[in-house]
Amino acid sequence: MPGALASENNLYRLPSKPRAYDAGGDGGRGLSHVALERLYYVPTLPNVLRSRHEVVEGASRECVGHQPVVCSLFPHLSNTHGGHAPLRMVNIVPAASQGEDATEKRPLRLGCVLSGGQAPGGHNVIIGLHDYLQRWHPGSTLLGFLNGPRGVMQNNYKLLTPEELDSYRNQGGFHMIGSGRDAIAKPDQLVAAEKTCLEHDLDGLVVIGGDDSNTNTAVMAEYFLKQGVKTTVVGVPKTIDGDLKNTDVPCSFGFDTACKVYSEAIGNIMIDSMSAKKYYHFIRLMGRAASHVTLECALQTHPQMALICEEVAAHRWGLKDVVRQVADMVAQRAELGKNFGVVLVPEGLVEFMHDVSALIAELNEMLAKGVNANDQCDVIAHLTQESADLFNGLTPSIRSELLEERDPHGNVQVSHIQTEKLLIKLVGQELARRKAQGTFRGKFSALSHFFGYEGRCSLPSNFDATYCNALGQAAGALVAAGQTGLMATVSNLAAPATKWTVGGTPLLSMMHLERRSGRDKPVIRKALVEIHGAAMTSYTSMRAIWAIQDWCRSPGPIQFHGHTADMASITLALEVNEGQPCLVNEPADDDK
Amino acid sequence: MPGALASENNLYRLPSKPRAYDAGGDGGRGLSHVALERLYYVPTLPNVLRSRHEVVEGASRECVGHQPVVCSLFPHLSNTHGGHAPLRMVNIVPAASQGEDATEKRPLRLGCVLSGGQAPGGHNVIIGLHDYLQRWHPGSTLLGFLNGPRGVMQNNYKLLTPEELDSYRNQGGFHMIGSGRDAIAKPDQLVAAEKTCLEHDLDGLVVIGGDDSNTNTAVMAEYFLKQGVKTTVVGVPKTIDGDLKNTDVPCSFGFDTACKVYSEAIGNIMIDSMSAKKYYHFIRLMGRAASHVTLECALQTHPQMALICEEVAAHRWGLKDVVRQVADMVAQRAELGKNFGVVLVPEGLVEFMHDVSALIAELNEMLAKGVNANDQCDVIAHLTQESADLFNGLTPSIRSELLEERDPHGNVQVSHIQTEKLLIKLVGQELARRKAQGTFRGKFSALSHFFGYEGRCSLPSNFDATYCNALGQAAGALVAAGQTGLMATVSNLAAPATKWTVGGTPLLSMMHLERRSGRDKPVIRKALVEIHGAAMTSYTSMRAIWAIQDWCRSPGPIQFHGHTADMASITLALEVNEGQPCLVNEPADDDK
Repeated sequence: MPGALASENNLYRLPSKPRAYDAGGDGGRGLSHVALERLYYVPTLPNVLRSRHEVVEGASRECVGHQPVVCSLFPHLSNTHGGHAPLRMVNIVPAASQGEDATEKRPLRLGCVLSGGQAPGGHNVIIGLHDYLQRWHPGSTLLGFLNGPRGVMQNNYKLLTPEELDSYRNQGGFHMIGSGRDAIAKPDQLVAAEKTCLEHDLDGLVVIGGDDSNTNTAVMAEYFLKQGVKTTVVGVPKTIDGDLKNTDVPCSFGFDTACKVYSEAIGNIMIDSMSAKKYYHFIRLMGRAASHVTLECALQTHPQMALICEEVAAHRWGLKDVVRQVADMVAQRAELGKNFGVVLVPEGLVEFMHDVSALIAELNEMLAKGVNANDQCDVIAHLTQESADLFNGLTPSIRSELLEERDPHGNVQVSHIQTEKLLIKLVGQELARRKAQGTFRGKFSALSHFFGYEGRCSLPSNFDATYCNALGQAAGALVAAGQTGLMATVSNLAAPATKWTVGGTPLLSMMHLERRSGRDKPVIRKALVEIHGAAMTSYTSMRAIWAIQDWCRSPGPIQFHGHTADMASITLALEVNEGQPCLVNEPADDDK
Repeated sequence: MPGALASENNLYRLPSKPRAYDAGGDGGRGLSHVALERLYYVPTLPNVLRSRHEVVEGASRECVGHQPVVCSLFPHLSNTHGGHAPLRMVNIVPAASQGEDATEKRPLRLGCVLSGGQAPGGHNVIIGLHDYLQRWHPGSTLLGFLNGPRGVMQNNYKLLTPEELDSYRNQGGFHMIGSGRDAIAKPDQLVAAEKTCLEHDLDGLVVIGGDDSNTNTAVMAEYFLKQGVKTTVVGVPKTIDGDLKNTDVPCSFGFDTACKVYSEAIGNIMIDSMSAKKYYHFIRLMGRAASHVTLECALQTHPQMALICEEVAAHRWGLKDVVRQVADMVAQRAELGKNFGVVLVPEGLVEFMHDVSALIAELNEMLAKGVNANDQCDVIAHLTQESADLFNGLTPSIRSELLEERDPHGNVQVSHIQTEKLLIKLVGQELARRKAQGTFRGKFSALSHFFGYEGRCSLPSNFDATYCNALGQAAGALVAAGQTGLMATVSNLAAPATKWTVGGTPLLSMMHLERRSGRDKPVIRKALVEIHGAAMTSYTSMRAIWAIQDWCRSPGPIQFHGHTADMASITLALEVNEGQPCLVNEPADDDK
């Protein structure tokens, strides 16, 4: 490989040899060999972005709910502007005109910001944006606001140079400019952001974030329109949770890679469980609002059981129901002489079991009223009978977690509850009861795991590296065309990346009203697992067998070369390609 | 690739196309795409095993300690037998004679067994053994004893067929025949094993295990010699902990892969820590007796701190010393505005801190005497003043772990102590104290992780796949030559696998006497981290810088293709190749 790779994206030189081990000559600073090799990976660019193109109106869209109210709250965004009808997609298509317009190549001034949790591929979005500007608007300026939206409000930024960007190509993490969880939503925050955009005379600001961040993107776009600020605002769909997804957004970036990292570990543990034959492993996975990660990992690894929050909610299962189901599976396997297996648990589970969520709501109300959390008797006295019974049935450590850990709003810190340990304890108690009754004759010994941080900053898969690059380039095209209030979208993912389509979708079309903090708020609707959707149906058709048989599937580590490297997630394959793998590139002849 | 690969090792056919997603046609049973691809990987065989070879005497060896006593306890093994002098290595070398001996090709009857914890590559040892028999002793029989040494004693086995073995080539896990932790050491156990070997008329038994398992291998070899049983017994060095290592055994198999799996996750978390800039991550890693895993992972990832048990013991550091060192690092980084980082903690740490190990010893003695563990006041009354002070300073949950969890011998279950959480609590307390004094002005928020089971059943790296195949073939050659009481060895690992040397080393030469359960016992000496060795020196030369700078290194997922795929661990590179990468194969032209 090395030297200077000749390619359309490659505008840089890199050392021509992999460095020696860090124990060797480079002072321990070095990129790893694999990370270094990834610098040279050239994501395939959709054909439409390779030659002259233009932005044209596409299909019209409606809000996913409460359209009149949502539109009334965003009057400028929902009214005609820039020649486009309200809630209309835009498509990026080959340029119709032959001659080049003199204004086409004008240099632009752009900013970008990372918002919220890390997701593999974030750097490639920024690099795609940069490469787009370099190619189509030479002389442009790209600012990276530091440590999230607060960087925009505080005008804390750095100028992104080609040299610096080159050292982050296809790398994981958000550390080039950092991220943060602040919001730009309140009037003073919007004013601060406006001041920064004016000071830098920005043509556009690209916000890379999840559903809440992109709700705020719409708010900022609306505000800038109202103020007559020229800066347009475009969002990019990021979240490993996979819950920013809709008609026009086939998936959020990072989901593919993160699920592959978790599935590698889960697959290894499943094989370990089959080899040692003595433990159940309860594995908690990220995904507080939606269980896409757990579902994808289940499809990848074939665990004995995967709990899916949306199903728990749909059936109004309570904690006892869930415990009984897990215990039933363990008992059934024990009859076959198998006292081992793997159970996947989404971190949001506690909130989806109706009895536990009722208990948490009661606790939150009580704590807000000033009941002393250290006095468990007093706490119990304030609970309804049903919640008090549930609370008393919990283990002491879980009771402490419920009462001691609070989020910044004083609420129970749900994400800190070790649900997998709670289940282990309660399933153990249930099985002990059955053993005493003579209805369980097996053994139950369990270990717990939590996978989350491991997957957020991995080197992006070929899919995420390519998808993010295309998203960044699309965002560049939208901003260059003066578009605002859109999310950059890349579609037709069943085809190789050369044939991917790109465009933008109105953020408003993803919104509806939700009750938050006692009032209706327009927000982007989270995509939950559809319990009759393709992915869930695929899982439910197999799970009774996977519970009993040991058809463990070990996906192995993410590969960057070879014919397995270009496959996207199973969820995507099921949702957009009838279960056939979505491949980033056409297989090479020797891969066929 | 697929179809039937023509190769020296390949005697099988596999489906010619990767299967569709399991959501598709194969009923959810399928191997993953990467796992399937790995079936076709052909490990390079050392040249010496490719053509006719013979076993000849090599260098003489001495026990690592107490040779006279060790030899007196193994009179048959240490006396001349089979024409070889006592404690003499054997080498496998090209055959001197031209003509083929008629007896050379006689079919053999062999058994094999997996002993102890899983390690990536175990299947390849068995497959190497099988391939050796197929090639040089056609018509041989290979039995796999099930679920560890107990399978030998209970005569529980399965006949290993080429078809079954082919489906485990280069796969992780021990699930083909299972493993177990039973020992064959006591008289009745040896008699049971003898009965099984006689019943099957075994020429040899290959035991794949760690230091304790291989100590027992020597005991069995001695017993069979004494009894005149023809079955020879040969060991293979397995353990992800890396502590089965000596002059003739450059490394145990599985260490390379497991460390790479952990380093992938650690590297991702380091990048996450640098991106979010708000957490310290305390990561506990496997390695109760030795810290090789932690050290290798530190060299791979450059954490802000890695605690090494052997260093803690050498300096007689106590818990307070360790807590102070971690707190000092956190405080130093806080001065630079950095309130994030990663600390690696070997699981054995508690036993290496002199004060904690004294406390545990006192608790064990007390519990053995029947002191009620539920009465903490009574427990404290029975401790020395120093231990009582230490015990009182621990968090309630750690106190409970110390008292409640017992191993089968009634001792404190050290491996269940969540040392990383203990350190987080105590470092937090220490920093709160400093903050009150005005000597710490930063923030300290920490998360904990434990990586262990994730790495034991991974698909083996190219190194482990190749090393294990060579070990298995070497074991086959030794048994075929009537050798017993040896460990199969593969050396010259600084060279490509074609030039690796193979042979056997007397198990006795690895032994010395250790005090166990109140009496001297001959056991294989564990290899601890040498605090002035190449790996530790490499780490200590960098750690002050890594503590301050953020030179995080993200090794990324294990690759099976490309020029990074063939590199073995950094520890091996430092120990046998002056820090230059050990490559399994010569780089291909396009990799240079």
